Amino acid sequence: MKINFEHALLKENIADYQDRVNEIHELLFKRECKGNDFLGWLDWPYDYDKEEFARIKEVGKEIRENADVLLVCGIGGSYLGARSAIEMMKGLYPDDKPEIIYTGNGLSSTYLYQVLNHIKGKSVYLNVISKSGTTTETAVAFRLFQQYIEETYGEEEASKRIIATTDKARGTLKNLADVKGYREFVIPDDMGGRYSVFSAVGLIPIAAAGLDIEELFKGCQKAYEDFRTPDLSKNIAYQYAVARRILENQCKGIELFVSYEPSMTMIAEWWKQLFGESEGKEGKGLYPASVTFTTDLHSMGQFIQEGTKSLFETVLTLENPMHDIIFPEDKENLDNMNYLAGKNIDWVNKMACQGTVEAHVETGNVPNILISMKDNSEFSYGYMIYFFFRACAMSVLMLDVNPFNQPGVEVYKKNMFRLLGKPAK
Amino acid sequence: MKINFEHALLKENIADYQDRVNEIHELLFKRECKGNDFLGWLDWPYDYDKEEFARIKEVGKEIRENADVLLVCGIGGSYLGARSAIEMMKGLYPDDKPEIIYTGNGLSSTYLYQVLNHIKGKSVYLNVISKSGTTTETAVAFRLFQQYIEETYGEEEASKRIIATTDKARGTLKNLADVKGYREFVIPDDMGGRYSVFSAVGLIPIAAAGLDIEELFKGCQKAYEDFRTPDLSKNIAYQYAVARRILENQCKGIELFVSYEPSMTMIAEWWKQLFGESEGKEGKGLYPASVTFTTDLHSMGQFIQEGTKSLFETVLTLENPMHDIIFPEDKENLDNMNYLAGKNIDWVNKMACQGTVEAHVETGNVPNILISMKDNSEFSYGYMIYFFFRACAMSVLMLDVNPFNQPGVEVYKKNMFRLLGKPAK
Repeated sequence: MKINFEHALLKENIADYQDRVNEIHELLFKRECKGNDFLGWLDWPYDYDKEEFARIKEVGKEIRENADVLLVCGIGGSYLGARSAIEMMKGLYPDDKPEIIYTGNGLSSTYLYQVLNHIKGKSVYLNVISKSGTTTETAVAFRLFQQYIEETYGEEEASKRIIATTDKARGTLKNLADVKGYREFVIPDDMGGRYSVFSAVGLIPIAAAGLDIEELFKGCQKAYEDFRTPDLSKNIAYQYAVARRILENQCKGIELFVSYEPSMTMIAEWWKQLFGESEGKEGKGLYPASVTFTTDLHSMGQFIQEGTKSLFETVLTLENPMHDIIFPEDKENLDNMNYLAGKNIDWVNKMACQGTVEAHVETGNVPNILISMKDNSEFSYGYMIYFFFRACAMSVLMLDVNPFNQPGVEVYKKNMFRLLGKPAK
Repeated sequence: MKINFEHALLKENIADYQDRVNEIHELLFKRECKGNDFLGWLDWPYDYDKEEFARIKEVGKEIRENADVLLVCGIGGSYLGARSAIEMMKGLYPDDKPEIIYTGNGLSSTYLYQVLNHIKGKSVYLNVISKSGTTTETAVAFRLFQQYIEETYGEEEASKRIIATTDKARGTLKNLADVKGYREFVIPDDMGGRYSVFSAVGLIPIAAAGLDIEELFKGCQKAYEDFRTPDLSKNIAYQYAVARRILENQCKGIELFVSYEPSMTMIAEWWKQLFGESEGKEGKGLYPASVTFTTDLHSMGQFIQEGTKSLFETVLTLENPMHDIIFPEDKENLDNMNYLAGKNIDWVNKMACQGTVEAHVETGNVPNILISMKDNSEFSYGYMIYFFFRACAMSVLMLDVNPFNQPGVEVYKKNMFRLLGKPAK
């Protein structure tokens, strides 16, 4: 992974923040920073539960062999990590089973109705993911699909087709899974949803999609090693963390995450949760937004180029695409496109990227931070995720904000429970 | 359609802008406003080409009867209108053919490769949509799929399966379609891409999806009638236009479009192009962002509730969902969800919405403009789109900006063409 600040239009030196970064780095690893009860993700690249990891590989294989459809039933961090991984590594039109459908992440009756219809006659597995089991979106969908699976396969077979990822010791879903005899996997106590993709939360769907979760951990471990040092001349995660704050000082209030692959649109959604939920507190934080280029150059491009100068871009690109195509010759050349014949389409995409950076930075005066990954492999994905974890923690702690809680998410729930007439426990 | 400003925390009266609105309304209908050469959409609800409309219905029917897959090949306004309409009115898991795949709207080789693979063995139609035929994204994809269709069905059959929506008189695609004998439909000269969904650009895919385009025009016409008057006590499109400017005066630089249906996510994308491309000029404009709730309450909810106070929300809801489900009883009640048994899930969604508005406005101090539509019918969709057209034109003209051009989109293209070595004409 490489990061390039040449087009970031930074008006301060990143290196000038070394003292502050050293201080936070030390607090982080001494577990004395704000939110220090939620640092389970920090040493996870080595500290993960190996016995459970082996069980995850097994259940992933079983789902893959038996399911036409895997329903992933969870919201927020309980689906975004898995979905971002699966789409990025397999693309939007993979040619194998199982089809993975995300549910329990909203309350649209239309969506639930259509999914119930869509899965009829197919072999269905379900992975329900909830720490407490009381999250309304997930609980509503889970009851519908659980009843469907029990009616379709009978109770005994259903208890094999439903897998619960939940608290290790207590809670509504834990109790339910015990009674029903579901296989159970653990959401660690000291890991918030947005930091949970390397736990069973993300790993079961990722393994079921046929991806190599060992390679994922290798990438994660490599990042861990690379980011041991707080030295700002070496640690690119901390460089990015500091650059965000410098651009905020330059009155850029919006960070726009840019990719050039539609299969990375969910990486952007995952990133928005990571940064938005970590730093959007106490009236602070950069607003995290996203676009997929070149698609959205034809919708949001005008604003970025010439609109209010309130944003900077963080561009994440792949050096090597999953698939490439050589653009074919056409003897009639009625479309005048023969000048590209024999070129790789990925090369055309890269020239579009280069031309866009130049347009936005030089003509539009919009700062661009450029991050590039080698490819969309499991290793690279693991590395990239841990990069963002560490960058986010550092960047938010620089604001003196707790990066690991989300008190504001409770407000709508409290109101909703009152309106729904939910009984007090 | 209804609009509610009770939670918009407006510090000025909308009615105080009546003189300015009258002035702009008059300039608009006299065709003397900025950008007056692109007002084809204004009287289009009645002025459309009836003969072409009949041909669109026919070709839609033919595609529907014969295609497993319809490839829509276009970028920006050449796909966002159709996609927003089809997803909103049919949902994300419709149970009929044709499957509609959007292509020509990016340069990802991975995406193109997978789509080429995915359509093998299926009956394919293609609608290519480009005014000039020289848009790189669309031209690259078109050559690939055109060659695939010609190889699969032979040239003669291919000329029936490929439909071109393009300039009426000239251009690369027009010439190509003439030579190949494709059926041709017109992109009007005086209508920008983001205002084109009611022309053949949007209507062919919408008709092919089995939707009633006559009803769509009826909704559009009703909106036209309702918005004849510039009176701010009656014209809700103009009310919305003014409210946006008032909130901008209150230092809200981001407008966040909110829906509660995943099938309306593309409405948000269409809306972002409409507003972002219309007003993001001369260093001006509100940054248009979007979320789908309740899904994104578990990612962006924290920021909205407690982060930087830089945004307001525009919430678009449906009074009646496409499908509803009664939440079932469970005799064991292990999930403690029986308190919702017998309730409609759409009602639960509505309570979530109500609780969220209360949380964001009263606790979070975030202004909310609430817009509600009766349902997701063709009539309601047509009405809503014309509402946004008129609101956008008014709101942008209030900034003294031309709402109908997009000069900034050309900058990246110019750079890209240089890097690609595109020959000068």
